[in-house]
Amino acid sequence: MSLRVFAPAPLVPGAEIVLDDDESHYLSRVRRAVPGDAIDLLDGVSSRHGGEVVAIEGRRCRVRVGAAIDLPEPTPLVLVLGLPDVGAAIESIAVACELGATQIALVRAARTPGVAPTTDRVARVVRAAQRQCGRARPPELAGPLALAEALAQVHTPFRRVATPGASPLDDRAPQGAGTALLVGPEGGLTPAEAADARAAGFVPISLGPWTLRTPTAVAAGLALVRAR
Amino acid sequence: MSLRVFAPAPLVPGAEIVLDDDESHYLSRVRRAVPGDAIDLLDGVSSRHGGEVVAIEGRRCRVRVGAAIDLPEPTPLVLVLGLPDVGAAIESIAVACELGATQIALVRAARTPGVAPTTDRVARVVRAAQRQCGRARPPELAGPLALAEALAQVHTPFRRVATPGASPLDDRAPQGAGTALLVGPEGGLTPAEAADARAAGFVPISLGPWTLRTPTAVAAGLALVRAR
Repeated sequence: MSLRVFAPAPLVPGAEIVLDDDESHYLSRVRRAVPGDAIDLLDGVSSRHGGEVVAIEGRRCRVRVGAAIDLPEPTPLVLVLGLPDVGAAIESIAVACELGATQIALVRAARTPGVAPTTDRVARVVRAAQRQCGRARPPELAGPLALAEALAQVHTPFRRVATPGASPLDDRAPQGAGTALLVGPEGGLTPAEAADARAAGFVPISLGPWTLRTPTAVAAGLALVRAR
Repeated sequence: MSLRVFAPAPLVPGAEIVLDDDESHYLSRVRRAVPGDAIDLLDGVSSRHGGEVVAIEGRRCRVRVGAAIDLPEPTPLVLVLGLPDVGAAIESIAVACELGATQIALVRAARTPGVAPTTDRVARVVRAAQRQCGRARPPELAGPLALAEALAQVHTPFRRVATPGASPLDDRAPQGAGTALLVGPEGGLTPAEAADARAAGFVPISLGPWTLRTPTAVAAGLALVRAR
């Protein structure tokens, strides 16, 4: 399993960096890295480099920055997420990071329960997901917004609503130029919200006959729209 | 959101049933159902019926069984799961239930850490997933098995290995007759395990360029193989 740590930009190949407390703790205590171990360095913004552990100095780790790793330029993949409860929202955001969402718009839908996750908590889960999955560039986050606001900000040519119902897959869509996926909260979109989504160009895709939890719908929906 | 409760087979339309303690507690305390509320009744084995809450009698709920609900006959969808840690294994099994896996074979892979979830815990998570998603028939469970044993039990015509790598999707597979999906544990399959899978007819599919957690790979992989 790759050892991935964060260090502030700019990452300059050949330079040595002393990691901050959190990253040093993660590398030397949690992952038990030792000098000579290969690592990945993320600046958290746009770059990923190779690297190596040079020394453990007390509580701090010194690392050497390696060459930049060339990563695929992502196709726009927007998730418009009708917020479920906080736990499911956090899990949905983590899943969307892993599956390559380039933007995530959090929406207060009619059936969204109570509170949204805090900006800090969302930032922490995105960072953990980047460490897990190796993405150099985090998704852009917006919201919580009203559904109409979020729909007005979607500029991709292809737009899908993932529902737990059994509507047929729309197989006519050409590929590649960017897709937005709208997933409702647990409890679903209201008929008025579904009508607004249709008016904004969203068409339904089926995720099968069973009622999914929101994170499962996000994973299945993103996998499907990305593959087409 | 549907109110789904379990009652032992046979479910006879028109009959009244007093639910057991757990189901009564769930219905009246957790979901705060009242007489007259519509419910779904699952026998946990193969049937789902409509129904109605008749009365709350102390700690117990009396319900009336309604008509059987006709559910789609599932296409065989086998998940061969290289066991990750217990938490991720439980989450992967829940996700596989929601997305329609008809069989789940748990595998002790070379990189499987420590212990497997207990049979009791697996049964509880399957039941919770049935309650969540509305499936009448739970997936058949097998294992933990050695990988070779599990591979020998796969009889579907289409076989896929979901990897975190960027191998191209195999688009030549015809649809419908049943698919098996092999997902490795976190850390992946070893080269020897991957060779055994190829020898058993499994071909790789891509889930994108990023390293996925096992439950995310299960959700994305099942969504993809089911759609083709």
